[in-house]
Amino acid sequence: MIRTHEAGSLRREHAGQHVTLAGWVARRRDHGGVVFIDLRDASGIVQVVFREEEHAHDLRSEYCVRIVGEVRLRPAGNENPDLPTGEVEVVASEVDVLSESAPLPFPIEGKVDVSEEVRLKYRYLDIRRQEVARAMRIRSQATYLAHEVMREHGFVYVETPSLTRSTPEGARDFLVPVRLQPGNWYALPQSPQLFKQLLMVSGLERYYQLARCFRDEDLRADRQPEFTQIDVEMSFVDQDDVIAIGEALIARLWKEILGYEIPLPLPRMSYAEAMARYGSDKPDLRFGCELVDLTEYFKNTPFRVFQAEYVGAVVMPGGASQTRKQLDGWQEWARSRGAKGLAYVLVQPDGELGGPVAKNLSDSERAGLAAATGAKPGDAIFFAAGARNASRELLGAARLEIGRRCGLIDESAWSFLWVVDAPMFEEDGEGGWTSVHHPFTAPKPEWADNFQDNPGEALACAYDMICNGMEIGGGSIRIHRAEMQQRVFDVLGISKEEAETKFGFLLEAFKYGPPPHGGIAYGWDRVCMLLAGGESIRDVIAFPKTASGFDPLTGAPTPITAQQRKEAGVDAKPAAREAAAPKAG
Amino acid sequence: MIRTHEAGSLRREHAGQHVTLAGWVARRRDHGGVVFIDLRDASGIVQVVFREEEHAHDLRSEYCVRIVGEVRLRPAGNENPDLPTGEVEVVASEVDVLSESAPLPFPIEGKVDVSEEVRLKYRYLDIRRQEVARAMRIRSQATYLAHEVMREHGFVYVETPSLTRSTPEGARDFLVPVRLQPGNWYALPQSPQLFKQLLMVSGLERYYQLARCFRDEDLRADRQPEFTQIDVEMSFVDQDDVIAIGEALIARLWKEILGYEIPLPLPRMSYAEAMARYGSDKPDLRFGCELVDLTEYFKNTPFRVFQAEYVGAVVMPGGASQTRKQLDGWQEWARSRGAKGLAYVLVQPDGELGGPVAKNLSDSERAGLAAATGAKPGDAIFFAAGARNASRELLGAARLEIGRRCGLIDESAWSFLWVVDAPMFEEDGEGGWTSVHHPFTAPKPEWADNFQDNPGEALACAYDMICNGMEIGGGSIRIHRAEMQQRVFDVLGISKEEAETKFGFLLEAFKYGPPPHGGIAYGWDRVCMLLAGGESIRDVIAFPKTASGFDPLTGAPTPITAQQRKEAGVDAKPAAREAAAPKAG
Repeated sequence: MIRTHEAGSLRREHAGQHVTLAGWVARRRDHGGVVFIDLRDASGIVQVVFREEEHAHDLRSEYCVRIVGEVRLRPAGNENPDLPTGEVEVVASEVDVLSESAPLPFPIEGKVDVSEEVRLKYRYLDIRRQEVARAMRIRSQATYLAHEVMREHGFVYVETPSLTRSTPEGARDFLVPVRLQPGNWYALPQSPQLFKQLLMVSGLERYYQLARCFRDEDLRADRQPEFTQIDVEMSFVDQDDVIAIGEALIARLWKEILGYEIPLPLPRMSYAEAMARYGSDKPDLRFGCELVDLTEYFKNTPFRVFQAEYVGAVVMPGGASQTRKQLDGWQEWARSRGAKGLAYVLVQPDGELGGPVAKNLSDSERAGLAAATGAKPGDAIFFAAGARNASRELLGAARLEIGRRCGLIDESAWSFLWVVDAPMFEEDGEGGWTSVHHPFTAPKPEWADNFQDNPGEALACAYDMICNGMEIGGGSIRIHRAEMQQRVFDVLGISKEEAETKFGFLLEAFKYGPPPHGGIAYGWDRVCMLLAGGESIRDVIAFPKTASGFDPLTGAPTPITAQQRKEAGVDAKPAAREAAAPKAG
Repeated sequence: MIRTHEAGSLRREHAGQHVTLAGWVARRRDHGGVVFIDLRDASGIVQVVFREEEHAHDLRSEYCVRIVGEVRLRPAGNENPDLPTGEVEVVASEVDVLSESAPLPFPIEGKVDVSEEVRLKYRYLDIRRQEVARAMRIRSQATYLAHEVMREHGFVYVETPSLTRSTPEGARDFLVPVRLQPGNWYALPQSPQLFKQLLMVSGLERYYQLARCFRDEDLRADRQPEFTQIDVEMSFVDQDDVIAIGEALIARLWKEILGYEIPLPLPRMSYAEAMARYGSDKPDLRFGCELVDLTEYFKNTPFRVFQAEYVGAVVMPGGASQTRKQLDGWQEWARSRGAKGLAYVLVQPDGELGGPVAKNLSDSERAGLAAATGAKPGDAIFFAAGARNASRELLGAARLEIGRRCGLIDESAWSFLWVVDAPMFEEDGEGGWTSVHHPFTAPKPEWADNFQDNPGEALACAYDMICNGMEIGGGSIRIHRAEMQQRVFDVLGISKEEAETKFGFLLEAFKYGPPPHGGIAYGWDRVCMLLAGGESIRDVIAFPKTASGFDPLTGAPTPITAQQRKEAGVDAKPAAREAAAPKAG
């Protein structure tokens, strides 16, 4: 090393020692011939004093320097208790500029007020900023801890391919032309789902991986075309075993990184209950404002709008005092979510009901409404009526919005739970069924034999871990019997031929004594974001892309040359596949 | 868990316990109404006894079963000392077929005699075989240990992008069309080289990653289009610091996995010495047979062929007794390597020299040859004459071939060393220079100011770790000064414009106080292959591809549909790049 000590490590007991430091000029202050600089390296900051100005003459912000000097106690009264090195300073006797710095596009120390795109373009400077570096270090620490937990539980780390075949995950695949087999393309994996199930067939029993996944999805605020998951699969287990591993992992992370003991076991809530009470399959339990089911209450209502399959409400505390503009804003908000609007009733301070809906209700409906919803004088009641799921989701979203607008969410709290017993299937809007998780998800034991008779009611052996209203992990027990898998394909309307084309190699593998198995995958970017207190997964990704998949730093993606195009075989017609290809090929 | 115990864990002290096991039928033996099966799970094997044949009636190889029974001591004389569970057996009272198995394409137990392509097509069965599963587990263990070592040394694990911009590593990039930016393509990284250097600019100081890399190279026996490296970069270091981390990593792996203490520090050999003595920059030191430089010896030779820039030899012990056919075989071998042939002299048992070359030599050359080369009666001497490097490489290859053919290599030995002081540049065959490592490699300090004056002599601050004649890791101290980097580009004939296009964003980053830094990358597949005693990196890759990049299991790559092609924007013309793109874009 070209230094003897790390800047942030110097303490009172180093006083009198000659040290060599290396790092960056964080701040500079000139005081009547004496120059002070804060020298920053990865370990922290120490104050360096130049008694003779000429030594420090050239030093400007973010110069990389090597400094030789003597540690001494700061003069009495000049200590800085906010700094771990605040009792000492280094009196420089020698300084060596390792490299200079051009003027910065934004300051490294203190507040930054530039667009995210500029920060990403100069990400290497952005990471020098304390809060960004801290997020990178937390992610690293979390990764170490994840390995530790999985190792303790006997998992085998297996790397699965990145250049592979399309997987049936629903999103689009990224494609890669193959020069050596012109006209043929690899797909980048949306997840290692099929490979991890194959590894269970292979008898490894406990697999995990920090897996890079790729999904070519449309623009959405906090999406990245590539992301990382902690991918886990286990054999001879039931749901409780997978859940126990998930809890062990999360508990270790929160304990070691945040000093927070997650109470275990986590509560479990059925999907049905989560939808009924919170209008969401990932409820945020950090505040109340639960949905109220008023279907029964309004079963004889004269109000046409409420003559619906489902009527529900959510109460906004103090919402009766909103301005007309604010109330109109809610209509806007609802329409932006695809709803027609958001009916409301205002409970006036005197208990009278205001707002356009109230006059459409019967006297008895008006009289009992506050009691039925739990609304107090001064509150607003928002309604949704119509199809059950859509209405609940609207109310669930309104609930979250209320939580935010009214400051009901305790940002220092952690709310973890499992949402279990999700439906196997949901209607696809075209008279058929689609998988809620994926087609390899097993039914709950009580639905094993008859899920096909009542697809809309059948429940899956699936479990999602929710933290503060975000899904951070999800998994299921898988189907391992060909006969049952076939019944699922039948419900989904997947023909034998289509199944064969898409995942014939998995079905083939399942002919050879597949074990019962199940697993889970954690969205690692999101877990790390929560641990780091970030607002976006971009906060915990070293080199993220913008929502359109653009990297402001490298300028990727770029056009390719005609020669690259030709060499890669982009325009070649595929030759007939060799005879050795598998049936599934 | 659907079992109470792991099969391989049962011992004498479990006798009398009722256990539930789950695993696979490894072997079945029927003995007069009593059936024995070996039940295999990830932990090992235990013998299960069925007293009544009908219970085991259906059980065939590789059925996946759950068995309830009682552990008992085996009858005296029936113990199997080769099996950890060999003192006990489980008397089955209940058996449950979890899934059946079709007839196998190859046996799981015992020797396998099918082509590798069949093994890869049914890789999930191949991994059930003990030796393959063992290799997967060794790789996993090695990965855990690598994390442990890097954690102890304060490294920050950072994930770098897989969807990025072309990097200047020499091989072809795999390309990925970008649907959201039609006409633009990502490249998959050949290594995280540029990103890890950017992370040093960012001040993280100690980075590492288990990084997936992609190179679109031509067919070669033991190549994969995707591979894994342990990628390391450090700031404020010199060569010794990086070497120390590399030694710590390798020592831990060999100690923990193989129980072998690598003597540290490893020997270091200069590139020049390695080429002179072994004709290779990755010498295998497990045997002698060093090259002999005869240039001086033959400086006045009458033999036209030896009137060359370089004449060298390597001795094959006992080689004089080779048949004419074997000697012809060497000519064939040399020609397949692009040489004209391999001149040789046979030292007869009586000390006389035989073979076609001998008669062309002068009397004194003949008289002193055995002493000059160290050849003994009965040996053969092989010669190469011509350009120094090409001749040495030919002799180096002949040396390895001699080692193999004569059984001189101790396969149980480990030979580790560092090869250091490689040249910065080599001639590109077109009158110019090319980098031996890569263009960011720093010169040794004594060449810092003048490498450009003598590119053929200048030495790099580069180091390769060699094990048993294979390069398993390599790295260098990097250039961090723009002025020096420019001089390297000048030697390489890289124009400012080209440098800007290829890695402008790195040069831009180097304007902002880059620290001195250096790093190393380990070929993880190869390291794991050595640890597992494999012969190919495919032995330690869960789902490898064939040399042409074909995956016999999934059938990847495949043609894509017209719709996929259209959606991916494969044929779109790129739009003009937005104004926000960096200069380097």
